[in-house]
Amino acid sequence: MRFSQLLIPTLKETPSEAEVVSHQLLLRAGFIRKLSSGIYSYLPLGLAAIRKVERIVREEMNRAGAQELLLPMVQPGDLWKESGRWEKYGPELLRFTDRHGRKSCLGPTHEEVITDLIRLNVHSYKELPLNLYQIQTKFRDEIRPRFGLMRGREFIMKDGYSFDASEEGADATYRKMHEAYHRIFSRCGLAFRAVEADTGTIGGSFSHEFMVLADTGEDTVVICSKCEYAANMEKARCLEPPAISPPPLLALTKIETPGKKKVAAVTEFLNISAKELVKTLVYMAEDKPVAVLLRGDHEVQTVKLANALGVNTDNLRLAEDKEIFDTTGTPSGYLGPIGLTIPVLADNELGRMHNFAIGANEKNFHLLNANLHRDFTVQTITDLRQITSEDLCPTCGGGLELTRGIEVGHIFKLGTKYSEALKATFLDNQGAEQPFIMGCYGIGVSRTVAAAIEQNHDKDGMIFPLPIAPFQVILLNLSPKDEAISAASSQLYDQLNKSGIEVILDDRDERPGSKFKDADLLGIPYRVMVGKSFSEKGEVEIKDRATGTTLNLPLAEAGAKLVALVHDALAPPQ
Amino acid sequence: MRFSQLLIPTLKETPSEAEVVSHQLLLRAGFIRKLSSGIYSYLPLGLAAIRKVERIVREEMNRAGAQELLLPMVQPGDLWKESGRWEKYGPELLRFTDRHGRKSCLGPTHEEVITDLIRLNVHSYKELPLNLYQIQTKFRDEIRPRFGLMRGREFIMKDGYSFDASEEGADATYRKMHEAYHRIFSRCGLAFRAVEADTGTIGGSFSHEFMVLADTGEDTVVICSKCEYAANMEKARCLEPPAISPPPLLALTKIETPGKKKVAAVTEFLNISAKELVKTLVYMAEDKPVAVLLRGDHEVQTVKLANALGVNTDNLRLAEDKEIFDTTGTPSGYLGPIGLTIPVLADNELGRMHNFAIGANEKNFHLLNANLHRDFTVQTITDLRQITSEDLCPTCGGGLELTRGIEVGHIFKLGTKYSEALKATFLDNQGAEQPFIMGCYGIGVSRTVAAAIEQNHDKDGMIFPLPIAPFQVILLNLSPKDEAISAASSQLYDQLNKSGIEVILDDRDERPGSKFKDADLLGIPYRVMVGKSFSEKGEVEIKDRATGTTLNLPLAEAGAKLVALVHDALAPPQ
Repeated sequence: MRFSQLLIPTLKETPSEAEVVSHQLLLRAGFIRKLSSGIYSYLPLGLAAIRKVERIVREEMNRAGAQELLLPMVQPGDLWKESGRWEKYGPELLRFTDRHGRKSCLGPTHEEVITDLIRLNVHSYKELPLNLYQIQTKFRDEIRPRFGLMRGREFIMKDGYSFDASEEGADATYRKMHEAYHRIFSRCGLAFRAVEADTGTIGGSFSHEFMVLADTGEDTVVICSKCEYAANMEKARCLEPPAISPPPLLALTKIETPGKKKVAAVTEFLNISAKELVKTLVYMAEDKPVAVLLRGDHEVQTVKLANALGVNTDNLRLAEDKEIFDTTGTPSGYLGPIGLTIPVLADNELGRMHNFAIGANEKNFHLLNANLHRDFTVQTITDLRQITSEDLCPTCGGGLELTRGIEVGHIFKLGTKYSEALKATFLDNQGAEQPFIMGCYGIGVSRTVAAAIEQNHDKDGMIFPLPIAPFQVILLNLSPKDEAISAASSQLYDQLNKSGIEVILDDRDERPGSKFKDADLLGIPYRVMVGKSFSEKGEVEIKDRATGTTLNLPLAEAGAKLVALVHDALAPPQ
Repeated sequence: MRFSQLLIPTLKETPSEAEVVSHQLLLRAGFIRKLSSGIYSYLPLGLAAIRKVERIVREEMNRAGAQELLLPMVQPGDLWKESGRWEKYGPELLRFTDRHGRKSCLGPTHEEVITDLIRLNVHSYKELPLNLYQIQTKFRDEIRPRFGLMRGREFIMKDGYSFDASEEGADATYRKMHEAYHRIFSRCGLAFRAVEADTGTIGGSFSHEFMVLADTGEDTVVICSKCEYAANMEKARCLEPPAISPPPLLALTKIETPGKKKVAAVTEFLNISAKELVKTLVYMAEDKPVAVLLRGDHEVQTVKLANALGVNTDNLRLAEDKEIFDTTGTPSGYLGPIGLTIPVLADNELGRMHNFAIGANEKNFHLLNANLHRDFTVQTITDLRQITSEDLCPTCGGGLELTRGIEVGHIFKLGTKYSEALKATFLDNQGAEQPFIMGCYGIGVSRTVAAAIEQNHDKDGMIFPLPIAPFQVILLNLSPKDEAISAASSQLYDQLNKSGIEVILDDRDERPGSKFKDADLLGIPYRVMVGKSFSEKGEVEIKDRATGTTLNLPLAEAGAKLVALVHDALAPPQ
């Protein structure tokens, strides 16, 4: 395509509305434009990048034996009532009434619709397994959409759903999807990790998130520096502390700590480390109080706590000061486990702590030399805390690193949650009715483009991995008024087009400086310059956007060289 | 793909809900399933056919210099208020309020959104022309959705919009789109005609509908048997009747016609032909009465009448008997033009009629030998009637044929309707602000698949034109338990896949009869049978679904033959 004929409204200034770099660059490079809050138009270059991701997704899903279909975006409320989500799903589910008064919603996801389709059309184990996917615009009415394509209201997703007759079959399908996702994000040219994710309250199932690694990511990812282990914070298991032979237990001692309530203030006052103190937090779980004991420098992982209590995270929150006083009789800041009448859970780490400080359950007092079992007991001792970079890998014992990531994919073994709710069954090989065993597999397609930019950019603009770049080559005609340069540019342009290379010819009547700036901004992997050195030596310059390396070579050789470079960059993963 | 692994839920019975053949066959062949009224899931084969159409559309739009983008489906109400359509568009526009109370709608079309995008991002004539399109799921809340994919509420459309700096530019863009549409429907393998369409109240503009010809079509199309002329009924111009030298004018004679009100009854009673009678109809145009004179056997064309009156068809209707009596003092059935005080329009045909019968404006009486100009005058004499197969081509004078069609595409020169309403302007080469001159170009993508089936089917099922068939070849392994036959089937299947042929291998453990039935139902262009004659003579049979012709040849030659057949069928149009 010729730049002069394309709609690429680049901007010189960074729009003030854009907080994150992908949002800024997508706007500046003319890839997207906002229509309304969280809703964007994809302009030709933005759409081209999205289509690249879609194509890779499609090829790898098909290779893994999945079939593409397309389900409606407008869904009947009745199906959501059957699954129980009409009430449970928050206001992100955009509900409306059609002209005939029927309750409907805009699909944020399609478990209900696909389960309904399968229960009506598939009846025997002989027709299984089935793995179906679609690539579609979804809508979630986010309360605070932001970050451009990272958290929009309208976005493009690949969502897939599998139906198996047995647990083993469902597990095999899950593994196939895990592999397909690896291939997809590898082929997109992204640095990513598949991390173990929490499965919430659905028992016996498993889940992985695929995270594009980027400093600007919203999520923290735990990665082992030695083995393949990776998990998100909700899931990352803290190793149980090794048993140690206890030191002599000292006598419990009450000490006045006037006005010292926070861990930092108490430990400074007592001249001890936060590792020598146990803090007592109170949570309200389904409106009932529960105490949580934790080493002073550790933090509660809410999802782990919710799982330990068997409640939904939506029904779990820190108690307010008044609630703490009402249930324990102690003001917040001086609470301790001795004599507590509400349920008490302790983090595993307490198992190797001795002679630690705790609250004295009395205003302005703490206790020194407290010991579990001797001075108090707990109902449960388990993994309740956020993992830290001081922890060791739960798989191999190696060192852990905490890094930032952007979730672009999620695979989930659903089990029979939806098939049971919607009574979707098949006849097994004994003629007995069984619920389908399901999995679901999502990829944020438009989000992947944003994540690729978060991971790959510099101060001048985006740096697209070639497989998902909207164009592979940008060819700059630096003197459109010079006949020889223009002829050479056109000749190379035609040659590249014929070789199947996706090339933009910048034929605009603009200064070279502005063409360089736009080429950098758009992040096209290879920039070819036809200018002065062509006039002087018959040479053109190829520049690699990512490395900045340049290569000067005769016009006649440039086409073949670019074909080879593009070909190498598209080589499929091992 | 293997049939056994695909979701193709074929049905033996025709579902009672389906009235038209495309709807029946799409359901029976497992191409679509209804989710709710007018909303369908596209199963793998249905989606595959749609994707074929999409691909042809995309290739031809790109070839014509259009650029693909993707606009949001959820649109802000404010933009529609700016264009005036928030109020004017009926309840087909699905309106809703989001969680923040903002009025929004589901996009049935995108004139507002694209005009807004362009006014914000394009400012100079140097950036024009621009031609942008998208392929997208649209929603129109039809009151009575029916006929499956023919008139759904949710459907897939290609909609394109062009922006030009001059009328000549806009006309050239229009012609390019006309050509692109010709190529698109030719490449789809469909019999179609581009017909002139009415442009309604937007003056100075033009419009063509692309009609797939099918006996079951909802629309009537007028086609010249000699030249290229084709038009829809609204647009088809009736030639002005040739001037004739008038016969002697006879004396006006009143005659009793007791109880004779309808044309048929009056002419039978008077023993004259309907061609010798002028009927007087009363319409309410924006609630004001107006009389229309027409030869007895002719019918009013409402759009022509609305255009002659300068009103919208929505504001034009036949008057009720009471309204006729109230405004003329004459009971319905005996009305005539003499002495009428309301405006009177006459169809051109009256120009050559003499000594005709009319109503006497008195119950139970008519007049014989009435004559225009002598006995009464009219305000306007123009083309107001439905064309008939007795009319002649307005371009070449050849014979006309009335045939049925299904509208699958529509191109329209919009002019400045939307750019003026939304104040979308650019600076011309004199530095003056000008509204963009727009065109819009739609293709019903999912509807094209339905239209293809309406045009191409027989009692056994669909007959897909190869370019839009979900698969090109269906390979029947007639004895999955026979090792030699299965090996030969697999070998040919692999060979075809490697040659890029889209092939389904029917590997199911089913009787041959049921495989034949399904192959016919699915309408795959070439059916290959590996069965008894392979065992006996090493031969397979290739059958052409459309012609029924069969060809027996050795297994080793079948692959190359199929490649050649598919290649020929995909040859691009001249």
